Amino acid sequence: MTKDLNISILADFYGELLSPRQREMIDMYYNQDLSLGEIAEEAGISRQGVRDLVKRGEKQLGEFEEKLGLVNRFAEISAGIAEINDIIGRLPDTDLTERLKELSQLLSEKI
Amino acid sequence: MTKDLNISILADFYGELLSPRQREMIDMYYNQDLSLGEIAEEAGISRQGVRDLVKRGEKQLGEFEEKLGLVNRFAEISAGIAEINDIIGRLPDTDLTERLKELSQLLSEKI
Repeated sequence: MTKDLNISILADFYGELLSPRQREMIDMYYNQDLSLGEIAEEAGISRQGVRDLVKRGEKQLGEFEEKLGLVNRFAEISAGIAEINDIIGRLPDTDLTERLKELSQLLSEKI
Repeated sequence: MTKDLNISILADFYGELLSPRQREMIDMYYNQDLSLGEIAEEAGISRQGVRDLVKRGEKQLGEFEEKLGLVNRFAEISAGIAEINDIIGRLPDTDLTERLKELSQLLSEKI
């Protein structure tokens, strides 16, 4: 079982749709970067039990993205904003471009 | 029962999580702007049955947004991009700003 870092992003978007138990497992495995064995010890269930919960959670997160595609939609917007920011950074300094840099900075922080 | 236009936006984001039947009702009521009576006739169920399905669908869509908040997240980004576009439109024309206008136009279309 290898850790798929995309799962972290999917969980950021759709994690609240998982059961609390699954969300907890996914969080420990992907965000806190614990091993299956460590989670098993902490949660008081078998390593195989943890593995099953994580696997099922991953599958559900993948299905949410398949249905809704919002991570992908966000990623495209985010790439577009990065491109725009890159050009904005190369504009000569004026009051207007200063304001633009501020706004694009703010926007990047929201993404 | 009044039509809440926000439901249309929620359905655009989360509609695929509803049952096909509910999605269909919400789509007819909000996107095709049919009346409960018209939908009842088309779907071959009672007006009250349509009303219940629409109401339940609305409730679920609201709960998805309460949990995930992605419509709100999108709206904030969208407002930020609109602000940026506004300033970009006031920049003097150069090759760089031309490119910037193109990119921000493209991005607006994605939102």
